[in-house]
Amino acid sequence: MDANQLYQQIRAKKSFLCVGLDTDVRKIPLSLTSKGKHDAVFEFNKAIIDATADLCVAYKPNMAFYEVNGARGWDSLAHTVQYLREHHPEIMIIADAKRGDISNTASMYAKSMFDSMDFDAVTIAPYMGRDAVQPFLEYQGRWAVLLAVTSNESWNDFQTLDIQSAHGDKRQLFEEVLERSKHWGHEGNMMYVVGATHASMLQRVRQIVPEHFLLIPGIGHQGGSLDDVVKYGMNRRCGLLVNSARGILYADGSARFAEAARAKALELQQQMARHLEQLG
Amino acid sequence: MDANQLYQQIRAKKSFLCVGLDTDVRKIPLSLTSKGKHDAVFEFNKAIIDATADLCVAYKPNMAFYEVNGARGWDSLAHTVQYLREHHPEIMIIADAKRGDISNTASMYAKSMFDSMDFDAVTIAPYMGRDAVQPFLEYQGRWAVLLAVTSNESWNDFQTLDIQSAHGDKRQLFEEVLERSKHWGHEGNMMYVVGATHASMLQRVRQIVPEHFLLIPGIGHQGGSLDDVVKYGMNRRCGLLVNSARGILYADGSARFAEAARAKALELQQQMARHLEQLG
Repeated sequence: MDANQLYQQIRAKKSFLCVGLDTDVRKIPLSLTSKGKHDAVFEFNKAIIDATADLCVAYKPNMAFYEVNGARGWDSLAHTVQYLREHHPEIMIIADAKRGDISNTASMYAKSMFDSMDFDAVTIAPYMGRDAVQPFLEYQGRWAVLLAVTSNESWNDFQTLDIQSAHGDKRQLFEEVLERSKHWGHEGNMMYVVGATHASMLQRVRQIVPEHFLLIPGIGHQGGSLDDVVKYGMNRRCGLLVNSARGILYADGSARFAEAARAKALELQQQMARHLEQLG
Repeated sequence: MDANQLYQQIRAKKSFLCVGLDTDVRKIPLSLTSKGKHDAVFEFNKAIIDATADLCVAYKPNMAFYEVNGARGWDSLAHTVQYLREHHPEIMIIADAKRGDISNTASMYAKSMFDSMDFDAVTIAPYMGRDAVQPFLEYQGRWAVLLAVTSNESWNDFQTLDIQSAHGDKRQLFEEVLERSKHWGHEGNMMYVVGATHASMLQRVRQIVPEHFLLIPGIGHQGGSLDDVVKYGMNRRCGLLVNSARGILYADGSARFAEAARAKALELQQQMARHLEQLG
């Protein structure tokens, strides 16, 4: 999927919502797990997708929640991707995997994520540098989503360290990550993760990467605000994918979970529609 | 497995060798893949383990090489771990996964790696800070192996950036990672990855973490030297796990691969035995 196809979808759906499929088997309603269904995680995802696909432009499965179920979890994930491809081929699928390794291993991860699994995009950690990202950029129409500013409590252990750059100017680590990595690919094959919990950082991010898509976790459950994200992070075309996972998936723990998920997703989509209108 | 159990093994086997199970299905001898064997990757691993288990103290499966085969790959990995637990319960099993995520996701990864899969240790990327590591440290007898200095070509994109520390003294990023993270756990539940390709860095690493185990990739195929690693990185108890993967696994591409693997492992073990003797 290229950037134009993604923008087409954003305009058509009046949404830049990404639904995080952090599907925790312990939080799935009994109505699904007790039915002796073959694959309750997939059934849950399918119900969430059916309830929200017209309101969002991307789904983001969180790999940890599938890996924890071993080979069975990997199957749930493969079925989810397959279901999306068959029923909603326009939607972007982002593997939240935070991979990153030496080049021959990174090539394997890229093959795993793009060939074996058919994801459109993968999140990647920057500590190992260009090597760890390059193999993902060699796939036409696929994306590498590099961590810049994360939404977790200890984000500033390292990301905001003051760096002495070669030119003598002062930068923080996340700015150096952005400055260097933006030349590895381009706006059509790289995005950045910037947590909504530090929305004011978005201004500084936008000074370095004005045109790239930013994948924004952390609204809702983690405390970030959509209005702030838009205020500091939206560019002239939009340039945002805002993720919500727990707030949508577990809006209601009963058999009516899908309706409740739709209501939450609709609420976010309507706010997004207003922001997109103002953009023109 | 605790540090004493690991040292016991190092003394008994006169070895601090870790065999990397980067098992690439495309490189497995035809004698295994053409036999219609149920799981050629597992059969290959089993043959490598049978040929090397008395010469090494750890195995390190590289997750990318299993993930690329989807659910089937996850099964190959589970069978490999199970085989090791049954036949060589004294050996440490390290998942080279380079995971790292926000705390609730990191908890899932820890559960996945330690409960679902029964690994002893997992490699973790430091960019997200303490959150991403802490959940792994909550498991008794398990280890978090944090990236400090990696062995890849672009290692110095970020790891050697000059940091302005709070106290005004100058440090490089990997030193800051070591300084901060060494207080998150202790020598009995944290190790660090330090690439053999930058052996002189080991001196600087040892100034900050004199007692921790260091997991050293990059000898052999990647060009690092065992003698240099020992010279700069060995501490008074040893404190090293030196990994070799491709040099052992693919020493011979024919049906005699296991014998060739043993010969390569033996060569390394004998060098290690000499170094351990000098240590006394």
